[in-house]
Amino acid sequence: MTTELQEKLKQVKFVITDVDGVLTDGLLHYDANGEALKSFHVRDGLGIRMLMEAGIQVAVLSGRDSAILRKRIADLGIKLAFLGKLEKESACFELCRQAGVAPEQTAYIGDDSVDLPAFAVCGLSFAVADAPEYVKNYADYTLGLGGGKGAFREMSDMILNAQGKAEIYNSAQGFLKTAKISARIFEDGEKDGAVKTPWKTTALFDSYRGRILNPPYFAIHPFPPFLNKILIFLDFQLLY
Amino acid sequence: MTTELQEKLKQVKFVITDVDGVLTDGLLHYDANGEALKSFHVRDGLGIRMLMEAGIQVAVLSGRDSAILRKRIADLGIKLAFLGKLEKESACFELCRQAGVAPEQTAYIGDDSVDLPAFAVCGLSFAVADAPEYVKNYADYTLGLGGGKGAFREMSDMILNAQGKAEIYNSAQGFLKTAKISARIFEDGEKDGAVKTPWKTTALFDSYRGRILNPPYFAIHPFPPFLNKILIFLDFQLLY
Amino acid sequence: MTTELQEKLKQVKFVITDVDGVLTDGLLHYDANGEALKSFHVRDGLGIRMLMEAGIQVAVLSGRDSAILRKRIADLGIKLAFLGKLEKESACFELCRQAGVAPEQTAYIGDDSVDLPAFAVCGLSFAVADAPEYVKNYADYTLGLGGGKGAFREMSDMILNAQGKAEIYNSAQGFLKTAKISARIFEDGEKDGAVKTPWKTTALFDSYRGRILNPPYFAIHPFPPFLNKILIFLDFQLLY
Amino acid sequence: MTTELQEKLKQVKFVITDVDGVLTDGLLHYDANGEALKSFHVRDGLGIRMLMEAGIQVAVLSGRDSAILRKRIADLGIKLAFLGKLEKESACFELCRQAGVAPEQTAYIGDDSVDLPAFAVCGLSFAVADAPEYVKNYADYTLGLGGGKGAFREMSDMILNAQGKAEIYNSAQGFLKTAKISARIFEDGEKDGAVKTPWKTTALFDSYRGRILNPPYFAIHPFPPFLNKILIFLDFQLLY
Repeated sequence: MTTELQEKLKQVKFVITDVDGVLTDGLLHYDANGEALKSFHVRDGLGIRMLMEAGIQVAVLSGRDSAILRKRIADLGIKLAFLGKLEKESACFELCRQAGVAPEQTAYIGDDSVDLPAFAVCGLSFAVADAPEYVKNYADYTLGLGGGKGAFREMSDMILNAQGKAEIYNSAQGFLKTAKISARIFEDGEKDGAVKTPWKTTALFDSYRGRILNPPYFAIHPFPPFLNKILIFLDFQLLY
Repeated sequence: MTTELQEKLKQVKFVITDVDGVLTDGLLHYDANGEALKSFHVRDGLGIRMLMEAGIQVAVLSGRDSAILRKRIADLGIKLAFLGKLEKESACFELCRQAGVAPEQTAYIGDDSVDLPAFAVCGLSFAVADAPEYVKNYADYTLGLGGGKGAFREMSDMILNAQGKAEIYNSAQGFLKTAKISARIFEDGEKDGAVKTPWKTTALFDSYRGRILNPPYFAIHPFPPFLNKILIFLDFQLLY
Repeated sequence: MTTELQEKLKQVKFVITDVDGVLTDGLLHYDANGEALKSFHVRDGLGIRMLMEAGIQVAVLSGRDSAILRKRIADLGIKLAFLGKLEKESACFELCRQAGVAPEQTAYIGDDSVDLPAFAVCGLSFAVADAPEYVKNYADYTLGLGGGKGAFREMSDMILNAQGKAEIYNSAQGFLKTAKISARIFEDGEKDGAVKTPWKTTALFDSYRGRILNPPYFAIHPFPPFLNKILIFLDFQLLY
Repeated sequence: MTTELQEKLKQVKFVITDVDGVLTDGLLHYDANGEALKSFHVRDGLGIRMLMEAGIQVAVLSGRDSAILRKRIADLGIKLAFLGKLEKESACFELCRQAGVAPEQTAYIGDDSVDLPAFAVCGLSFAVADAPEYVKNYADYTLGLGGGKGAFREMSDMILNAQGKAEIYNSAQGFLKTAKISARIFEDGEKDGAVKTPWKTTALFDSYRGRILNPPYFAIHPFPPFLNKILIFLDFQLLY
């Protein structure tokens, strides 16, 4: 890794991601009514959550739009998205404006010709491993993993690592500790008057408690209820 | 690349593509009623759009037929298709007749024995990377990518490159510029009395405008309406 | 390839195939009601058709059973199947009895421990490329392709090649010629009082005629109706 | 393989497995309502069955929860599961308690940061081949196969092999013999007053008998009914 790349990674406060070919392997699963399924990678989802927990905003910018994609965006708690947009130059400027972050502090990850104008706008650009050569040549960095195979996560790990936050993903203790911190941030965010999404709180509770299945079918809950309020702080959200 | 191949690529005015094993990875996703899903690659879709925008016709020729495939063909704006046809020799002649292009100016991309008669008819033949050896041996050129992994796009890039139109895919400026030109071609086509499909116009508008999601859910449209009529010219269609 | 293998391939009159991990890549696509989809490879389907057209019977033997699998079996015109059967030793003997072929003239293709007893019964056994080592060690031959990636087709090509019928798959002329011969066999079969399945005839007609889509939507049929009766003889069936 | 690993493998009496990225390749197949499909590998399913037949308990521990996953768990006859739980340290202790097995005798297989606390608890930890480097570094052993490609089965084979039970998977005779033994264990379990699940018995019967399809559609059952009660002992269960 060059020093220049390392410096750019330190500056990143906002990540814009393409969808098809980046968060997916590029396959559009069609039935007779059009796209019926989209396949996302679970480790990318956790990477998106990790960035957001670390205070780095994430936006989705796609040439396509669908109820499926919107559902995934909602499940991940992503607040900024620009869908059905092929002219990505102005879209990137608009998303940066909404995020309140300069394009130089923004990273973009893409896989195709339509992403080249976005590469030109954003301070740091990533191409997935299976992108065409001319897309890779345009990007600041070509990832080792392909779209839908964890490419986003590879990028998010690089960003967190450059910003001294590698422990969030690479250690058992760090994963727990960062979760505590981010729980506090989440609390502060609520005090600051940010929109309170009811499902988010529910998800946190659910995530802590889990759901245990026992013989014959379900188990008694393993923790006394009064611990819920405390243990929730130790837990990432369910929705990755 | 040989000079002969280069010369053939320059002549191409029409591309006929097989479907299963070429635009897909060959998997037929069955439920109890038969084929339930077909998985197409997003970058192939854009390759088909790029050829058409550059004035090269595209047709689909498949031994199978389904409502799913017809939906994908419609979404891509493909006008010529011959489905459920295993005897591909006469089918290629018929499609060339309908396209008004000589077989020598036609490229065919396939993956299996049923495609060999089509290889024999068309001036230039491509086999996908995962085709059996005897199919590859028959083809003028074996692509580096497998079916459903971007093989079609690799071919369409080769054709555009040989015809001096590489900038349509390999540069941010070129992508924008070609979009402008093709918008003019599209307009001329309409003046010439070609069938005007309403969804196409809608798609163009949608594609320009995109759909932006904001906290809590949707954003105000970022562009004033009077720009719609102009900006539409700068944009590819949504449907790739 | 050893001489012994070559001799065994020449004797094959019957092929028994496992399903999951052989005709598929082993993935069971579940929804809340169980298996919702099975993904088969289009080139394997044509391989099964080619064997049957060449007079080699094909049977399916699976430890699992589902309406999905039965649909695929019906679409391929396979007449012998034993489903939901994990004890494959007796199953192979029973299928051989029904096919009227000795186990020594039977080839079996599998991927897992449950297939080992079947390997022991049948005269020739194949393991897919991604089978565990101990399954490969048991098999007479390990294929170069994995389950659901064309492994069955690799095997069927080997059998046809050893029996001097390679032209059915490796030449444009041969593909056409063999289709003619098999059409005659099909006719003889009907004269011999074999069950006449109405959909089969329909499929043959459909296959010859294909379905052509034209601007704006569908084209006029390209062949005069009186040619149907003749041209049907030149055509494989639609159902691969 | 080191002697230490070999010793640890001998001690394993309980296996806890993550789901997404381990039993699947990490892809979340979304439709507009969220996760619509999960894709499991058939050879992993048989590996889970083999462990259980050999007296080694298996539990599922996942950060996510869904009706789909519960269906797969039920089909495999898994009795212990903790779903929708991201804090996996306490979850592992709880599952060990319920299984009545010490953490030192427990193996865990995972693919991501959330699994690191579980690696720390369990006596033996496995990472799938496509896990990030930092997850592999934490694990006792990195498998040669990726998630959803048979990684679980690779691990279960290692465990059975170390415990002198390799014949259950690597020989035709052993597969049959072990099935007989496990049938006896199953019977003893019933005598001991374990919950009798009706579908289980049905599945065993179905599994023995299989379902044979004949021309034109279905065959007469090949075995006389009085053999059912005996032959059921020779058979694994259908549900893998």
